[in-house]
Amino acid sequence: MEHSTFFLVPLSSILALGFAYYFFRAMLNESEGTDTMKQIAQYVREGAMSYLKQQYKVVVAVFIVLAVIFAVMAFFGLQNSWVPFAFLTGGFFSGLAGFFGMKTATYASARTAHAASKSLNSGLQIAFRSGAVMGLVVVGLALLDIAIWYIILNQFIPETDSGHKLIVITTTMLTFGMGASTQALFARVGGGIYTKAADVGADLVGKVEAGIPEDDPRNPATIADNVGDNVGDVAGMGADLYESYCGSILATAALGASAFLTQPELQLKAVFAPMLIAATGVILSILGIFLVKTDEHADMKKLMQALNRGVNVSSFLTAVATFFILYILQIPNWLGLSFSVITGLIAGIIIGQSTEYYTSHSFKPTRKIAESGETGPATVIISGIGTGMMSTAIPVLTIAFAIILSYLCATKFDIAHIVAAENLSKGLYGIGIAAVGMLSTLGITLATDAYGPIADNAGGNAQMAGLDPEVRRRTDALDALGNTTAATGKGFAIGSAALTALALLASYIEEIKIGLVRIGEKTLTLANGDIVETGRATFADFMNYYEIHLMNPKVLVGVFIGSMMAFLFCGLTMNAVSRAAQKMVNEVRRQFREIKGILTGEATPDYATCVEISTKGAQREMLLPSLLAIATPILTGLIFGVSGVMGLLVGGLGSGFVLAVFMANAGGAWDNAKKYVEDGNFGGKGSESHKACVVGDTVGDPFKDTSGPSLNILIKLMSMVSIVMAGLTATWSLL
Amino acid sequence: MEHSTFFLVPLSSILALGFAYYFFRAMLNESEGTDTMKQIAQYVREGAMSYLKQQYKVVVAVFIVLAVIFAVMAFFGLQNSWVPFAFLTGGFFSGLAGFFGMKTATYASARTAHAASKSLNSGLQIAFRSGAVMGLVVVGLALLDIAIWYIILNQFIPETDSGHKLIVITTTMLTFGMGASTQALFARVGGGIYTKAADVGADLVGKVEAGIPEDDPRNPATIADNVGDNVGDVAGMGADLYESYCGSILATAALGASAFLTQPELQLKAVFAPMLIAATGVILSILGIFLVKTDEHADMKKLMQALNRGVNVSSFLTAVATFFILYILQIPNWLGLSFSVITGLIAGIIIGQSTEYYTSHSFKPTRKIAESGETGPATVIISGIGTGMMSTAIPVLTIAFAIILSYLCATKFDIAHIVAAENLSKGLYGIGIAAVGMLSTLGITLATDAYGPIADNAGGNAQMAGLDPEVRRRTDALDALGNTTAATGKGFAIGSAALTALALLASYIEEIKIGLVRIGEKTLTLANGDIVETGRATFADFMNYYEIHLMNPKVLVGVFIGSMMAFLFCGLTMNAVSRAAQKMVNEVRRQFREIKGILTGEATPDYATCVEISTKGAQREMLLPSLLAIATPILTGLIFGVSGVMGLLVGGLGSGFVLAVFMANAGGAWDNAKKYVEDGNFGGKGSESHKACVVGDTVGDPFKDTSGPSLNILIKLMSMVSIVMAGLTATWSLL
Repeated sequence: MEHSTFFLVPLSSILALGFAYYFFRAMLNESEGTDTMKQIAQYVREGAMSYLKQQYKVVVAVFIVLAVIFAVMAFFGLQNSWVPFAFLTGGFFSGLAGFFGMKTATYASARTAHAASKSLNSGLQIAFRSGAVMGLVVVGLALLDIAIWYIILNQFIPETDSGHKLIVITTTMLTFGMGASTQALFARVGGGIYTKAADVGADLVGKVEAGIPEDDPRNPATIADNVGDNVGDVAGMGADLYESYCGSILATAALGASAFLTQPELQLKAVFAPMLIAATGVILSILGIFLVKTDEHADMKKLMQALNRGVNVSSFLTAVATFFILYILQIPNWLGLSFSVITGLIAGIIIGQSTEYYTSHSFKPTRKIAESGETGPATVIISGIGTGMMSTAIPVLTIAFAIILSYLCATKFDIAHIVAAENLSKGLYGIGIAAVGMLSTLGITLATDAYGPIADNAGGNAQMAGLDPEVRRRTDALDALGNTTAATGKGFAIGSAALTALALLASYIEEIKIGLVRIGEKTLTLANGDIVETGRATFADFMNYYEIHLMNPKVLVGVFIGSMMAFLFCGLTMNAVSRAAQKMVNEVRRQFREIKGILTGEATPDYATCVEISTKGAQREMLLPSLLAIATPILTGLIFGVSGVMGLLVGGLGSGFVLAVFMANAGGAWDNAKKYVEDGNFGGKGSESHKACVVGDTVGDPFKDTSGPSLNILIKLMSMVSIVMAGLTATWSLL
Repeated sequence: MEHSTFFLVPLSSILALGFAYYFFRAMLNESEGTDTMKQIAQYVREGAMSYLKQQYKVVVAVFIVLAVIFAVMAFFGLQNSWVPFAFLTGGFFSGLAGFFGMKTATYASARTAHAASKSLNSGLQIAFRSGAVMGLVVVGLALLDIAIWYIILNQFIPETDSGHKLIVITTTMLTFGMGASTQALFARVGGGIYTKAADVGADLVGKVEAGIPEDDPRNPATIADNVGDNVGDVAGMGADLYESYCGSILATAALGASAFLTQPELQLKAVFAPMLIAATGVILSILGIFLVKTDEHADMKKLMQALNRGVNVSSFLTAVATFFILYILQIPNWLGLSFSVITGLIAGIIIGQSTEYYTSHSFKPTRKIAESGETGPATVIISGIGTGMMSTAIPVLTIAFAIILSYLCATKFDIAHIVAAENLSKGLYGIGIAAVGMLSTLGITLATDAYGPIADNAGGNAQMAGLDPEVRRRTDALDALGNTTAATGKGFAIGSAALTALALLASYIEEIKIGLVRIGEKTLTLANGDIVETGRATFADFMNYYEIHLMNPKVLVGVFIGSMMAFLFCGLTMNAVSRAAQKMVNEVRRQFREIKGILTGEATPDYATCVEISTKGAQREMLLPSLLAIATPILTGLIFGVSGVMGLLVGGLGSGFVLAVFMANAGGAWDNAKKYVEDGNFGGKGSESHKACVVGDTVGDPFKDTSGPSLNILIKLMSMVSIVMAGLTATWSLL
């Protein structure tokens, strides 16, 4: 079973990895600047790597336990025997992507600062192309993993007469998403706790108590803070999107295999379609990356235009290419499905724009928050929370609109039979392919994201190394640009996580089906007495069989627990940051007290201890929320069965998505409200308004960089765990 | 169609209203104290009444518009012609309850302060029995409304052969809940904005800037603050629980009429059962109220015991009585249903206890928040939000457990056929009757709630009138007790709202059924081709007919929008408080600046302007969130039909419930963390820790008194709107 176009998948993967290596080498060839700059970069690099080592230790332990569990399940026929291996490679590749991305970022910061002393454009080039290494490594490794597994499984899984081979292949591949998901969980939660413990600690004592600026070398926590940007924003964000990328492609492939079960030739095409769209997107992303350049005297607006040019050209060309791909594949309703893809692409852009509106201080909402600083920190917090909550409306309505529109496009607007069995599987495939569309240009959108922390660290390096104010001004400009891309990137990450989770939700039913077939349930007796062949049962049949409707108390209980999980998980991570930051505060205070001459610059602070505190804090604190996220879907399945799990996933998705948007936007808005005051508004730096806004910014830190982004993983991971455990849930549950 | 036990319903109503009048007269006979005390009480009374007048103006306008809409719908056969009248009486009685409760409270505060100058027990008696007026008026008017409407409809609705008469009666009565709901919405939102604009404004300028204590007569906003306690906590809370009380009884009656449709004799009993349990609870609540007394030298612990004695005896006796009632009615599975009632009663107690654990400074979570004050306001906010989020776990799991347990009890633990059509209707009836159980002792639990603001105002009166420190110490003790009951009361209000909303959700399907029958749809063709008679279609049939399952994109979109609604609604109310408080801050600052001698006590501040600012602010700001809450279910129904509405309600319920618990508990914990510091911990009053905790308290104000409680209404109101609009939704929708 092959198709002549499949070669595009490994090809684009190799291209992506090749260009990533090229950008990496080019960056390494640049000078790292003065000895002080090298020294600082070295500190950050060592801190980041030592943290990553610690994190991987925990992750490896968890992976071994889970792989053993999956092997035992496979032994008892509750899971396919490929699953433990698929799981491990998913985790390994995701970890590798994080490792490469972070290594690149930590090498790039000093070089960016040095290049910025030549010109703004040189700085932009180095920072952006180093970010592109991350983007390309993520998509390259993801497609590589997909291609390898497809080839292996296609070789070893026996041919059947009824199109089931592809179902088995795709549902098996989907489980490697569980590995990516678990890795991402630890990266996001651990990295998020690390970075904000350091940041909050550094700010509270350094900025507020001692009155020294950000990134000042006299602050003992400043290296830890810079390390945190790398482990949280680079490695964490990368693992998050690696997972969404794999998850959306694989879930859509599984939905395609099911939707076209009765038409073997179409089935293969439907499985390939998401992979090919992704592969094309990779190639066009590389093209876009080369378009990002600016002249020597660019201002902020021109910088932004330079980035946007790259992203927009890639997106536009990918949209156009989608029509060709689906037309050439001759998938029925290729036009409708192409519009589903476009829906996803456009939804991603709208969510990014709305994030910018709510978090940039060029617009009213953030300025209002800054203004409320005049009546003190309490009103800053109240209006930040109010604004953050209101900012959920546009993204949620956009996703809701994208869901219904991509569904309708994929079903030729057959409104009279909108949920008929046939339409249901095609429509869900349409939603999946919209998620793929949204993520298709990840190669370049992730580059703009990963660019942010590199520019941030370059600024830190320039400040600590005492470079010329002019250079510092340039790195500040690069950093400001990074803050904008970080905000839109966060919106994009959440939106794509929501659509991906929805596709995973649908493929959960596919996994239940495969699980039932595996344990030998040949037929299902529906509620109305009809008997259907398990392997050919439709989504509608399963909804009927398990009574997954909204009056089923198990579904309702699942929804309640799912909604609660999002809050509980956030609460745990917020408190984790609070505890770890407390330790950091005490350590920084101790150093200021005990090491004489730090504040006058005569003594060097003990950076390493602060790095260690963040590392240990993150390592200790990441375990409980992570295990909770893994255990809850399993327990729900064991007690309430399939209908309870579906309720859990929908409840968690609904409230998790909204909560994530709220936290990311409130945090981003507080950050920029503070910057707006620092720009000289409402009293400017050092005023009471400024102090009030610093409180908002500090509260916003764990909102936007720990708890909020971790929710992206939560909503995907709960689906993934359910998918991997489907065999068990299908076999037994208490109620 | 009568039943010999029905007389209990009007009887208990008259008893409740009679005792309310007795307690009211007894309170009025007490002395109001010195002239200053009378003067202050007069200010507060006038402010409260003038606000209520303004609120009723807005409400009357909205009611007229809605009643006309319902009349038009009735004209076109989309609704029963009784509905506009039922709607109006629901609103009128709810408004009446709020009016009486608040009138009593505003007469009681000075009398409580004066009585406290005699002894603690005298103070407690007056405050508590005045609170009991509210409790008894609410349950008395609710049962009166129910009894009157039942008698009228029973007279006028024609007998049919197939048990449909009771279905029509109960589903019609349910719509008067919409009136109560709308009234409650404005009371909670408007009152909540009023009280917190005043409170935040008074605190920010008075306490923080001018450094004068709470309730100081020099603070121009202090009268508005005291008025706010009455309009928010008394009238708002009363209207909220009036609605839950009616809603749970009426929804359960409707579910009973449906569950026993084929057995006419049982059907009537199933309709009466919730009413009789409620009626018995009223009588036993009155008994409990008389048990609340303490000796002359009671301490805090004894005071608490005195209140608990009343509540516990009422609850225990109601539980016992339930077994008798259901046994005497000879309802099948009377034992199981009795246990469903007990489940609800116990769930209410557990939620109250967990609220106390998370918000009282006798326990670790709140003390941790106080401790984090040592590192400034930012960490206070972070740990308060973290703790609030974690505090959602117990209430949600309790409600989840109550749902499944009351369902299983009502279906004789028939786990093998847990969601079979027959079990589904009985089980949902069980969930409804659990909600009735939880609310059955509302007469006394609401008394302990309404007691709080009275004691608070008594403290304010004592402070402003410059009473003896010993008296002030006693009113403080009464106030502290009130804070505890307020916290548990809030938990109880949320928990009962969630269960009530669930019962309403189920009865929504009943309304759709009636709507289809009314427009002449005699049969339904299910997805599998089966044809069922509309009037006899089961819940399962409707789930099938409208495909209300979790893969239906319309359901999923509904869930997303519902989850978002909770946040958007909160965001709007938070920002409303922020804006109104800002105006208050400016006014108080202006008065301090322009009216010379306020701070030295030589000049009297202009209280009236502050009262007016709060009134106007509340009036202006309550409209948008309220209209949004009413419009969203209507629009969702018009676009996405029944399945979209069901998704909306479930999504809104899931995330609204969790968000409400989070906000109430975070707010309560911040309040008490501040008090803990004021008690001399972590530096005590005036320290940096204290300032940090005051920020937390100020942020918590709109959390716990505006946005959080308004969510209770939102989740019930959206169901109520859907219920009233069911006829329209059943007839037409876009998708």
